[in-house]
Amino acid sequence: METIQYNLPQDRIPRVWYNILPDLPSPLAPPLHPGTHQPLGPEDLAPLFPMSLILQEVSAEREIEIPEEVRQIYAQWRPSPLIRARRLEKALDTPAHIYYKYEGVSPAGSHKLNTAVPQAFYNKKAGTKRLSTETGAGQWGSALSMACSFLGLECKVYMVRVSYDQKPYRRALMEAFGASVTASPSTETESGRAILAEHPNSNGSLGIAISEAVEVAAKDPNTKYALGSVLNHVLLHQTVIGQEAIEQMALAGDEPDVIIGCTGGGSNFAGLVMPYLGRKIKGQCQARVVAVEPAACPSLTKGRFTYDFGDTAHLTPLVKMHTLGSTFIPPGIHAGGLRYHGMAPLVSHVLDLGLAEAVTVQQLDAFAAGIQFARAEGIIPAPEANHAVAQAIAEALRARAEGKPRTILFNLSGHGYFDMQSYIAYHAGTLENYEYPEEEIAMALAGLPSVE
Amino acid sequence: METIQYNLPQDRIPRVWYNILPDLPSPLAPPLHPGTHQPLGPEDLAPLFPMSLILQEVSAEREIEIPEEVRQIYAQWRPSPLIRARRLEKALDTPAHIYYKYEGVSPAGSHKLNTAVPQAFYNKKAGTKRLSTETGAGQWGSALSMACSFLGLECKVYMVRVSYDQKPYRRALMEAFGASVTASPSTETESGRAILAEHPNSNGSLGIAISEAVEVAAKDPNTKYALGSVLNHVLLHQTVIGQEAIEQMALAGDEPDVIIGCTGGGSNFAGLVMPYLGRKIKGQCQARVVAVEPAACPSLTKGRFTYDFGDTAHLTPLVKMHTLGSTFIPPGIHAGGLRYHGMAPLVSHVLDLGLAEAVTVQQLDAFAAGIQFARAEGIIPAPEANHAVAQAIAEALRARAEGKPRTILFNLSGHGYFDMQSYIAYHAGTLENYEYPEEEIAMALAGLPSVE
Repeated sequence: METIQYNLPQDRIPRVWYNILPDLPSPLAPPLHPGTHQPLGPEDLAPLFPMSLILQEVSAEREIEIPEEVRQIYAQWRPSPLIRARRLEKALDTPAHIYYKYEGVSPAGSHKLNTAVPQAFYNKKAGTKRLSTETGAGQWGSALSMACSFLGLECKVYMVRVSYDQKPYRRALMEAFGASVTASPSTETESGRAILAEHPNSNGSLGIAISEAVEVAAKDPNTKYALGSVLNHVLLHQTVIGQEAIEQMALAGDEPDVIIGCTGGGSNFAGLVMPYLGRKIKGQCQARVVAVEPAACPSLTKGRFTYDFGDTAHLTPLVKMHTLGSTFIPPGIHAGGLRYHGMAPLVSHVLDLGLAEAVTVQQLDAFAAGIQFARAEGIIPAPEANHAVAQAIAEALRARAEGKPRTILFNLSGHGYFDMQSYIAYHAGTLENYEYPEEEIAMALAGLPSVE
Repeated sequence: METIQYNLPQDRIPRVWYNILPDLPSPLAPPLHPGTHQPLGPEDLAPLFPMSLILQEVSAEREIEIPEEVRQIYAQWRPSPLIRARRLEKALDTPAHIYYKYEGVSPAGSHKLNTAVPQAFYNKKAGTKRLSTETGAGQWGSALSMACSFLGLECKVYMVRVSYDQKPYRRALMEAFGASVTASPSTETESGRAILAEHPNSNGSLGIAISEAVEVAAKDPNTKYALGSVLNHVLLHQTVIGQEAIEQMALAGDEPDVIIGCTGGGSNFAGLVMPYLGRKIKGQCQARVVAVEPAACPSLTKGRFTYDFGDTAHLTPLVKMHTLGSTFIPPGIHAGGLRYHGMAPLVSHVLDLGLAEAVTVQQLDAFAAGIQFARAEGIIPAPEANHAVAQAIAEALRARAEGKPRTILFNLSGHGYFDMQSYIAYHAGTLENYEYPEEEIAMALAGLPSVE
């Protein structure tokens, strides 16, 4: 029998998160205070995050120990499977080997639980009573709701309006875990009311929802804020994915030639690739590393690498990242988790260093790839993950055209069982591609803050 | 770290299905021809099933080898995890150990893929071009659609009307795999048209949908019929669950005192318990074995153990089973997979022999248990599986009240990610309990065929 799943036992759950910062050939640009434009100190972030997470954000330690309580919760679904897509390989008639790391086995259905659990854990330990957050497609909100339910915290979720309307079941899932879910922009916050005054029918965006969640946390001493991507500590928690993948690829006796992840804020991509990039920096890995973003929201391929706000209302620090401008509202593509104007500073930085490359995929191509994958492998990918699938299939077809073997590894970051409305729309022919929204992005970029 | 998952490597996927028939203290009553009331011969079933499956239906072999091609497909998700529900134990403050065998990790989301794959495999080998089937909640239809996609067969699904309307995403999933899905009763068949003539607004039932799917297969030589439960060969394929569980419980160093599964047609229950009952017959297992059915459709606890038809239009053979009468249309509970008037003959027989017992659970209690489970364990169970969860929690609370340890094992047969509408209704307070529909059942029982 051919091996399909390369699984590790529970005691192989990583004991540390891998922090690439000390291994980088040049340091990250520091986050700046939005008012003074001076580098932030830890105390500037204290209203939003517990000190343990702030220290992880700026840590210079290569390895950060995973608390035993967090590993204990990870043990319900980790190590996640590495699966060889043998039926897809046959369907594509390719000499390539295709592997996917499947994060959809988490009870939340995506990689997001990898960071939701430690964030809830450190907050609980610091005495936080409630976490506020944003969610786009709902993967992050579901994961944080679940983690809060496990750890005994309240959870307040601002859900981007377009997803709130498209995905009632996603909301029901969060509510099943006891979370309070509000469509964003909402009338509950100043940020939300300001947007609604100008755009009463606003679809919302991750940038707006972040403003609302941050505002609520800043104003209530019992509430802290939790972010599902972008920040260093969030990406750090995801490195369990890549560490496991390295061990599992060794089990498979294979070495990836190309490593692929979709990118919205950058966390599932970073989780898979950072442990590999650490090796690449040391000359121990030659793989190409490819970030895949939607053509409608191309921050890595068309954005500027500069300081910008993380949110629309400009409540967050300034961070240096690939950005389309914080006032840019991306088109309402179904991959809601990729509708973000910016990109994790760390992902932006490794791209700038030439350690990774970026490509775009159109919405219809992403769904076509998702269906092709599902018919061979059985799993319906989340619309976000379809972008990674499309690139993996493109690489496999290139290998066939060139008649060369190639080992492809991609992150199947989540399943699409809560995204079936988008598949219905795809089958009905009502989904469309979006042209690169040139004018809107130019306007948003023109409004970038000027930082010396 | 406490162990949460008891996992087996890929090479521990069972090599055989366990057939309990030769171990039973008394034989099953034979199926009878619906016209002559004489025992059926294999050739009588040939229009509906390939001969390989017919021979499995009546096999006297204790072990039936699983084809390597089937094991190869199983390898994508099998062996499925056995999980110790430690957070639920803590939440219940019980001395009981609670384990669940989680079949929701299959890409189809339930145990149904365990039999869909071999059924598609044997049909493909026999030259079948298309499979027709019924589905209630959609778990079976999804699994067969996926298996047909893997093996290269067409798939035609008659989906019970009430589920078709309640669960558009379930239908979208089947269509993503290329299946053709029709609401039942439909105008496509004589059986469907006859029902619609009498009940133009019929909600449908599994019995009606079976009639439609059987009729289509009987009339088209290129089409065979596939059933998701009830028949011996279907239950046989599910015994991979119990065989794995026995090995995993040994890994856990624990022995179940009570083994629980929900019952609609009986297949997930049988899959878990038959390997244990084989041991119980030999005196090697003392566990209580409990079937849990919905109060609204109580075939085991309130039905008659007698010959009846498997479908509403009386196209199937007569089988001896616990039945509420083939004309009984169960109330529209959300556990659509449990809305069946009958019960697998094999499950009926082991109950009759005293090897297992049966209890009922009301709809609201089932959902309350599902939410309690989800908040502790993260997984939202399918509404069907909630019945098993409710009984597992009841056993754990009894252990607490008695101050006694107890080891509980139940089958979490599927996740509820396509059933969120029922959770929305539960939270909105619009779900209701159903009284035992005494009059309707009495009428249906009065119409039972008389068999000498």
